[in-house]
Amino acid sequence: MSRRFALTPGEPAGIGPDLCLLLASSAHPHVLIAIASRALLSDRAAVLGLDTQLHSVTPEDWPSEPAPAGTLYVWDTPLTHTAEPGRLQTANAPYVLETLTRAAQGCLDGSFAGMITAPVHKGVINDAGIAFSGHTEFLAQLTGTPQVVMMLATHGLRVALVTTHLPLKDVAASITPQRLEDVTRILHADLKQKFGISAPRILVCGLNPHAGESGHLGREEIEIIEPTLQRLRSEGMDLVGPLPADTLFSPKNLEHCDAVLAMYHDQGLPVLKYKGFGAAVNVTLGLPIVRTSVDHGTALDLAGTGRIDTGSLQVALETAYQMTGR
Amino acid sequence: MSRRFALTPGEPAGIGPDLCLLLASSAHPHVLIAIASRALLSDRAAVLGLDTQLHSVTPEDWPSEPAPAGTLYVWDTPLTHTAEPGRLQTANAPYVLETLTRAAQGCLDGSFAGMITAPVHKGVINDAGIAFSGHTEFLAQLTGTPQVVMMLATHGLRVALVTTHLPLKDVAASITPQRLEDVTRILHADLKQKFGISAPRILVCGLNPHAGESGHLGREEIEIIEPTLQRLRSEGMDLVGPLPADTLFSPKNLEHCDAVLAMYHDQGLPVLKYKGFGAAVNVTLGLPIVRTSVDHGTALDLAGTGRIDTGSLQVALETAYQMTGR
Repeated sequence: MSRRFALTPGEPAGIGPDLCLLLASSAHPHVLIAIASRALLSDRAAVLGLDTQLHSVTPEDWPSEPAPAGTLYVWDTPLTHTAEPGRLQTANAPYVLETLTRAAQGCLDGSFAGMITAPVHKGVINDAGIAFSGHTEFLAQLTGTPQVVMMLATHGLRVALVTTHLPLKDVAASITPQRLEDVTRILHADLKQKFGISAPRILVCGLNPHAGESGHLGREEIEIIEPTLQRLRSEGMDLVGPLPADTLFSPKNLEHCDAVLAMYHDQGLPVLKYKGFGAAVNVTLGLPIVRTSVDHGTALDLAGTGRIDTGSLQVALETAYQMTGR
Repeated sequence: MSRRFALTPGEPAGIGPDLCLLLASSAHPHVLIAIASRALLSDRAAVLGLDTQLHSVTPEDWPSEPAPAGTLYVWDTPLTHTAEPGRLQTANAPYVLETLTRAAQGCLDGSFAGMITAPVHKGVINDAGIAFSGHTEFLAQLTGTPQVVMMLATHGLRVALVTTHLPLKDVAASITPQRLEDVTRILHADLKQKFGISAPRILVCGLNPHAGESGHLGREEIEIIEPTLQRLRSEGMDLVGPLPADTLFSPKNLEHCDAVLAMYHDQGLPVLKYKGFGAAVNVTLGLPIVRTSVDHGTALDLAGTGRIDTGSLQVALETAYQMTGR
């Protein structure tokens, strides 16, 4: 049976609207509802030379069947100012947040099985005087979730992060037993519940080069990571490590694990994005809703040009389907 | 014309001797001289079931032609204790250092065009009461070189590091303008002089996630990295960055650069080793001699088993040939 998903095109001056229009060129197995300005989508389709049929829908009359190829369902959400490709406008920041709010509340009330997000522009939202540090934090707050986990995935590799958008100098002090335990529990639980993996096997990176080399290159592995993993293993979790990050990503290791847990952003994501170039997805774990996202930015200079690739958005859709298929 | 290279098998209990024996199964375009215990190589060949011919040579009678397939030239360097596969012995630590010293001095006096090293075991050398933090530092000291740079390379990618074997918590403070400048100069000079690249293009990673995102995630990019790169660009160096490390390693970027400069170990090496699995080489830049090395460890549990791959050693040889071919 087909399920219903919310699709948020994000920043109106970026490539999000373009991606959603291109996506509608083909048919999909589930009902996709773009939460966006209909006028924006209509204008952008004209710029791109697409004759996408925009079909307005509301919570009172959700469609039950997927749209045919060439048609996009739109829950019209008005802009403050007409959007132009590549031109950021602070006046439209509340619009962007309204689309996210509609999508998330729809997930909470059962209207949507999950939400798939195109990129927003943090800078312009902050410039509009609204504190905003990203989709993930916004959705955590909106759903009352104290701790979420960022995971990126591509074919054959999932990488979750213990810390995310922190200056490098602050990373080591942020790897506390509590944080590591919370993140590992969320990752483990969501791999089971949302991805249907009955006994997830997780490879855990050390914090330091060579995983500290028995304490010669840092002691966090000995004092924090090993004892925490040991405690969680005693509950039956299959956790391997801490392993040196530079040699962890071997084909043999990756074949035999369900996720890698990296301690920080640039330890885990370069190899994930290298491996999954153009086809990686960002998943927020720990939320009471399913949310997946493209792994790229707004690409303001490419909006309206058509020189874009829907690869990451396709993987974001497929991952959302997978996470809601049980 | 064929050139002469020193080959050091490193830790006698590890797979280094095995790798050198396997290498000798085929013919090579240059003269390779193993600096090792002849008795060790003879014993290990017997364990492996190889009938490698060991041909003793000395500085008084260097061979002028490469050895035929199945023959290995050996500059006999006696062990203190008979070596056994997998069994570390502190008594043999001075032997390991003597082989390195002979190789490096031979490079300095013109006996060798370069040296190729198999892995040593830092722990057993330190346990023997000898301060030793690795090949790189040992060779820097022996050749009176104040600053060297570690670079790993595989087909299509070279990654050099501003900092190497430091606890993660100490990395940010170690990225000083002076260090970044020194490392960049050495990398640039060696790409020109040793690799024959007339105008090297170097992509430089930021220190922080998203290269600091205009100062929101750390200020080292603004205060240290950008001004240093700008100063070096004014001398004509082609330096791009600082770039976010997670998106830097795209196929398009890598096609158009000669090296990536990463700020620290686990930022640059996971993707290098993933891309170059089993065929990566470690090169020490900045030395007055050419030194390349395998990128793996002693693998004590595999010594004497024959279940090893000479891929990395082959690439180390090819890279040494390339670096001395001008």
